[in-house]
Amino acid sequence: MAEPPVIVLVRPQLGENIGKAARAMLNFGLTEMRLVNPRDGWPNPSAGPAAAGADIVLDRAKIYETTADAVADCEHIYATTVRKRGVTKPVVGPDAAAELMHSQEGRHAILFGREASGLETEDVALARHILTVPINPEFGSLNLAQAVILTAYEYSRIGREVNADQGLVQPTADDEMLPPAPQAELDGLIEHFEKLLGPRGYFLPESRADATRRTLRSVLTKPGWNHLEVRTLRGILSTLERDPRD
Amino acid sequence: MAEPPVIVLVRPQLGENIGKAARAMLNFGLTEMRLVNPRDGWPNPSAGPAAAGADIVLDRAKIYETTADAVADCEHIYATTVRKRGVTKPVVGPDAAAELMHSQEGRHAILFGREASGLETEDVALARHILTVPINPEFGSLNLAQAVILTAYEYSRIGREVNADQGLVQPTADDEMLPPAPQAELDGLIEHFEKLLGPRGYFLPESRADATRRTLRSVLTKPGWNHLEVRTLRGILSTLERDPRD
Repeated sequence: MAEPPVIVLVRPQLGENIGKAARAMLNFGLTEMRLVNPRDGWPNPSAGPAAAGADIVLDRAKIYETTADAVADCEHIYATTVRKRGVTKPVVGPDAAAELMHSQEGRHAILFGREASGLETEDVALARHILTVPINPEFGSLNLAQAVILTAYEYSRIGREVNADQGLVQPTADDEMLPPAPQAELDGLIEHFEKLLGPRGYFLPESRADATRRTLRSVLTKPGWNHLEVRTLRGILSTLERDPRD
Repeated sequence: MAEPPVIVLVRPQLGENIGKAARAMLNFGLTEMRLVNPRDGWPNPSAGPAAAGADIVLDRAKIYETTADAVADCEHIYATTVRKRGVTKPVVGPDAAAELMHSQEGRHAILFGREASGLETEDVALARHILTVPINPEFGSLNLAQAVILTAYEYSRIGREVNADQGLVQPTADDEMLPPAPQAELDGLIEHFEKLLGPRGYFLPESRADATRRTLRSVLTKPGWNHLEVRTLRGILSTLERDPRD
């Protein structure tokens, strides 16, 4: 069975909310928290009291400068957003996400954005799935800890269902598939593309460069290529760097 | 279909928690709250700010002297407890409870106890089911609003499942994603790759050429890229055909 997911809080603002998220996690057995550039530094004296005893989660929390660093060793990345934006990634609820986490090998990481503004476009670009809690369209007001607890609850609930079903060994074709490559390998591939494309003017005009980079990342993230496939693509790019024989 | 459940807060202590419970409810479309003998009276000035806009729930809340009065018109009563005590009633999780709420006619009411001590034995006695959220046995620390939100979330989630089973139209975000490009477009992409790679010796030695072609096709087929994504990749390949600027 896959390891429990990593909860990644991206640029969280209040220590109190970090503590509440830790408490929400531990209620359902999740212990691995990562913090990307928390606004008020770390450790944060407001986190402990709000964790209500979930100190083990806070003590083990790791800090990262960037979201990409925080998920570099993870194969499956979910970006939590309250509402769909014009995205071309599959959107899953906490239940479907939990099923993926229990059925797909490799590390899963769930990104949660800052309280006021959510995830940035660049954070979302790292993910292959959008995780959206389906809420009342006329009143959407989930806070950070609530989004975390619903996700953690579903991971726990689906886990019990999976365990209950395991009397029946039911290997699927998916089990034989290799997991997606870790994020760092995918990043290496994307950089390789950019290195070849940049000098050929692909990212011009400059005003469109960021959007073009996001599109490139998005197209290359969608496949969920495994380690071997990424290696194949790196070979293709290296080949393309050579001059054709005349 | 049955009416949505009534959320009954039995002798709640803090107005703030009543407000948070209202917010949790409305996120998942529940609007009917009943309060049994709230400690600080009603209305409570702390409730509104914590409701974060869920005023409709607070404005409509009804007050009762006893739990029995609060559920007098309800057919199905659930007593929420964190841990099972020595009870002889069926114990259900939020998921199984939600299934009952959607499948059994009549009014359903869910009792939540006071923050510090939970429901009294007399309250539990009114219920036919015990509703327990299965939490980490080594760290059980759910607060009132969290218990409410998990219950409301499950009511909403199961409701969507029921609707989906009934053939009701239930558009999902996945439906908005473009389908994979037609095979001809994918073939055009693969040929484009081959045209660039062949002269650079990628398919050598000749004895491995077929296997290498299959691997290439396999890697490019896996993503299920849509029409726009294939077009992006064709643009990338065209760019790579150009010489870099010096």
